[in-house]
Amino acid sequence: MHKLLTSNLKLGIIAGGQLAKMLIQEASKWDIDSYVLDSEPDCPAASIASHSILGSYRDYDDVYRFGKMVDLLSFEIEHVNVEALIQLKREGLRIVPDPRILELIQDKGLQKEFFARHGIPTAEFKTYGSAEAIRGGIERGEISYPFVQKLRKGGYDGRGVAVIQDAGSLDSLLHGASLVERRVEIDRELSVVVARNGKGEIKSYPVVEMLFDPKANLADMIICPSSVGSEQSEKALSLAARIIEDLKMEGVLAVEFFVDQDGEVVVNEMAPRTHNSGHHTIESVATSQFEQQLRAVLDLPLGSTQLLLPAVMVNIVGDEGHEGPVRYEGVEEILALEGVNLHLYGKKITRPYRKMGHVTVVSASLADALEKAKQVKETIGVKSWKHS
Amino acid sequence: MHKLLTSNLKLGIIAGGQLAKMLIQEASKWDIDSYVLDSEPDCPAASIASHSILGSYRDYDDVYRFGKMVDLLSFEIEHVNVEALIQLKREGLRIVPDPRILELIQDKGLQKEFFARHGIPTAEFKTYGSAEAIRGGIERGEISYPFVQKLRKGGYDGRGVAVIQDAGSLDSLLHGASLVERRVEIDRELSVVVARNGKGEIKSYPVVEMLFDPKANLADMIICPSSVGSEQSEKALSLAARIIEDLKMEGVLAVEFFVDQDGEVVVNEMAPRTHNSGHHTIESVATSQFEQQLRAVLDLPLGSTQLLLPAVMVNIVGDEGHEGPVRYEGVEEILALEGVNLHLYGKKITRPYRKMGHVTVVSASLADALEKAKQVKETIGVKSWKHS
Repeated sequence: MHKLLTSNLKLGIIAGGQLAKMLIQEASKWDIDSYVLDSEPDCPAASIASHSILGSYRDYDDVYRFGKMVDLLSFEIEHVNVEALIQLKREGLRIVPDPRILELIQDKGLQKEFFARHGIPTAEFKTYGSAEAIRGGIERGEISYPFVQKLRKGGYDGRGVAVIQDAGSLDSLLHGASLVERRVEIDRELSVVVARNGKGEIKSYPVVEMLFDPKANLADMIICPSSVGSEQSEKALSLAARIIEDLKMEGVLAVEFFVDQDGEVVVNEMAPRTHNSGHHTIESVATSQFEQQLRAVLDLPLGSTQLLLPAVMVNIVGDEGHEGPVRYEGVEEILALEGVNLHLYGKKITRPYRKMGHVTVVSASLADALEKAKQVKETIGVKSWKHS
Repeated sequence: MHKLLTSNLKLGIIAGGQLAKMLIQEASKWDIDSYVLDSEPDCPAASIASHSILGSYRDYDDVYRFGKMVDLLSFEIEHVNVEALIQLKREGLRIVPDPRILELIQDKGLQKEFFARHGIPTAEFKTYGSAEAIRGGIERGEISYPFVQKLRKGGYDGRGVAVIQDAGSLDSLLHGASLVERRVEIDRELSVVVARNGKGEIKSYPVVEMLFDPKANLADMIICPSSVGSEQSEKALSLAARIIEDLKMEGVLAVEFFVDQDGEVVVNEMAPRTHNSGHHTIESVATSQFEQQLRAVLDLPLGSTQLLLPAVMVNIVGDEGHEGPVRYEGVEEILALEGVNLHLYGKKITRPYRKMGHVTVVSASLADALEKAKQVKETIGVKSWKHS
């Protein structure tokens, strides 16, 4: 990465949401010139990107033209036009992670087949071409209730997933090519963010535990360190490292796990990028997941993933019943709590459960951090001017 | 600060160097819209500021017009056109720190008189209107050798200071209104960054020790915690808090101290802003000095100044014999050291001893951090393409 040394390196980031914004906050420390491709001129990353380029990450021409502007390409979302990336790579552009990783992960069917092929424990599954084909599978006795249907492509933040309890809820089946999974009786949900560079060096962040808000279908609180036993924790860490190694992937990978009622650790899914479950690393770990992404993209030595302080991360989501220009409440109160670190992404419009920001509480005591995180949740309000 | 809650707050920062850049890195986390006034279009802060405005901070019209664009005004340098600030304040703009603080601190004579009036220990001094007047003072026996001459206005990073050993070095006297100080026999140099908000809340960062490079006349390494005894450390902390209280100042104030050969702690000078001696707080303290500045400017509760890990900060300055477009050497090697945090400011042109960036090394052991900081100094190179 000879160009890093010249202070002229152009890093392209596809999509300009909060992950891109937090990556640029790190990239600016190394004086890297940041280019963002997004279809919204006031996307979160636009306010601090060196250059904002308007265009769609799903469009071949937009992605291709954007790639020709930069020295290095990465992304904050996996649903990118892969054909454009493959062409750019053919023409010599360094893209991290590699387009073939995106191609695999964009399709939850291919993702599951990868797990099966490499002996990675995951819920039993079958793939089907449509809702109709799933009904056929049920009639043939291939599928038993309850089960989970996941669209192979396009799912995000809990969208594209249906839980079918019994024959009476078959009307909820989603349309499109899907995989059908045995429903895991979930005891806990864990996540591991792991990074690998071009020299094959691998570093994993400590296991976090994800607490879900059933209404928002979003991870509601992230706790680090998790409260699972060391056996399960080591299992999750070793699986995450095995997956990134088997993928021969450069970059940052988030792996989500279920721990079932019998204490078995199975992989749920993965994302080839920084992740909500790693936001706490900005304050609680020696190297944040965003700096780690930069290190991997630049093929630099990976940074230490040592946890400095216990941390609890709370998502700040739009309040129910509010849609329109955003207005935050309770900011001053939460900033009076020691150890509270506020991140507002800068989205202009709030909607119910939209991710608008997050707070990481660090403390020498996890119990204290949890207590304060609950206070933050109760105190912060994300309203709209229109409904006030 | 009702506007903070709307995601539309416009923060103006006068001058766009590294201090402004690091302030914007924090402001972007709270989704504050940043405006920077600088005469250089590619100043360090321009790469991440929401809006870069071209103009001189010394020019009345430029400062006044800039102030009319924003909701709140702060600065990264004290040599701002104060008349424009006073007019803007009269028209209702919130400016933090207040223009009267700038007026006082811009003039080292007024600064010293403030210390004397408030019983703050500082080296004995007298003020003179010119080099000629100083010669007169010597003839009248008011001044004895060795002494230090400081220009009342415009000094920065060691410029505007002359050390006069004896009559033979009188040719080195600087021209302009000056103060003449008894030369302190310096044992150590300390610094305290302290903040105060509009509610009168005061928080001080731990005392740091500054090691100087005699060639560059710049603080070369900053060590936190310092190695001075607790009595001197408490003296420095209490003086810093007394000064900001006596000034009734809102904002961040850096106070530099000498410890003389007898162990006495005296104030050297102060700056009404974030400071090189506080850069380590980005990684080593719960709240960085830049977030603290934001909190003070927004009149929010001040953040915790608890030291999380011992830290050593090293300035990255231009190598001797190199002037021109910058090229860094050894970046990959230093990033391989655990605990190394790199900040490159993004200045395009290097000059001998120009501050181009800094590195903060954090470690559970201060000795380890010091060892690595020395390695960083030996490894990093700031060259110019032209001279390679």
